[in-house]
Amino acid sequence: MNNRFEEAFVDELRDAYDAEERIAKALPKIIDKVQNEELKSALQEHLEVTEEQSRRVQQILEGIGKSRSRKTCEGIKGILEEGETAMKEFKDDPELLDAVLIGGCQRVEHYEIAVYGTLCAWAERLGYDDARETLAEILDEEKEADRLLTEIAERIVNPEAAGTE
Amino acid sequence: MNNRFEEAFVDELRDAYDAEERIAKALPKIIDKVQNEELKSALQEHLEVTEEQSRRVQQILEGIGKSRSRKTCEGIKGILEEGETAMKEFKDDPELLDAVLIGGCQRVEHYEIAVYGTLCAWAERLGYDDARETLAEILDEEKEADRLLTEIAERIVNPEAAGTE
Repeated sequence: MNNRFEEAFVDELRDAYDAEERIAKALPKIIDKVQNEELKSALQEHLEVTEEQSRRVQQILEGIGKSRSRKTCEGIKGILEEGETAMKEFKDDPELLDAVLIGGCQRVEHYEIAVYGTLCAWAERLGYDDARETLAEILDEEKEADRLLTEIAERIVNPEAAGTE
Repeated sequence: MNNRFEEAFVDELRDAYDAEERIAKALPKIIDKVQNEELKSALQEHLEVTEEQSRRVQQILEGIGKSRSRKTCEGIKGILEEGETAMKEFKDDPELLDAVLIGGCQRVEHYEIAVYGTLCAWAERLGYDDARETLAEILDEEKEADRLLTEIAERIVNPEAAGTE
């Protein structure tokens, strides 16, 4: 069973690799449309983190002797399509667009939290200790990104409530 | 700006309504393929919770005077497509299929956590207190579902490690 389990693990890694590449490609377009400076700078930083995560996922594939090929991540593809639609729909209302885009980014982060959580458990099962450590680090980075986005969203969506805290 | 903000809020509610309906339609097929009894029974219970959540989202739409129409949720559509592919790919290996399906279900849960988190913040902004309360309840249910799935995943994927705790 571990052979097929490894096959599924590699599939998931290639899916995660594809997801990171798609996110890295979409982020500059999103950053360009964002008005709020705090959000813009958080996403700029997250773009660098995403590129680094993509490199680390590729290194895991190489480390276990597998090719660095991508497998289309339908989930992230769908979430990013929603973001494209929102950018067209709300392009004339920058404040609202910021609120919509931050919601989209949080869907991306949560999707990734689920993916890396699964990958960590599978790496443990397969005894890939180095991979598990790297995947746990990436998982923590995604959780931290989501936490920061929640804080910024509160300030963008509910500025009065956030101001009185 | 609040008018257009309300428009975006209603869009998101219709997206969430569509997501719940898609999940409610997909779950029986997933439950049918699942081997592990604990996972099967957790998903069976979550199907009932999902149907109830769909009803509550519809009630929110009606409560603010909007029609109960659906807006295609591309994110959930993509995640469920991945699940369909996995069911075909690993159908001859029930234990592995359980591990893959639980990973897919956690992607669904995390996606929903992001959606309801956003909807809560927006309901607060718009002063829809009743809606905010209902959305916060649904958010907690999704978080609890994800927590339970993580526990079951540990027992399915790493039975030895889970047994020694």
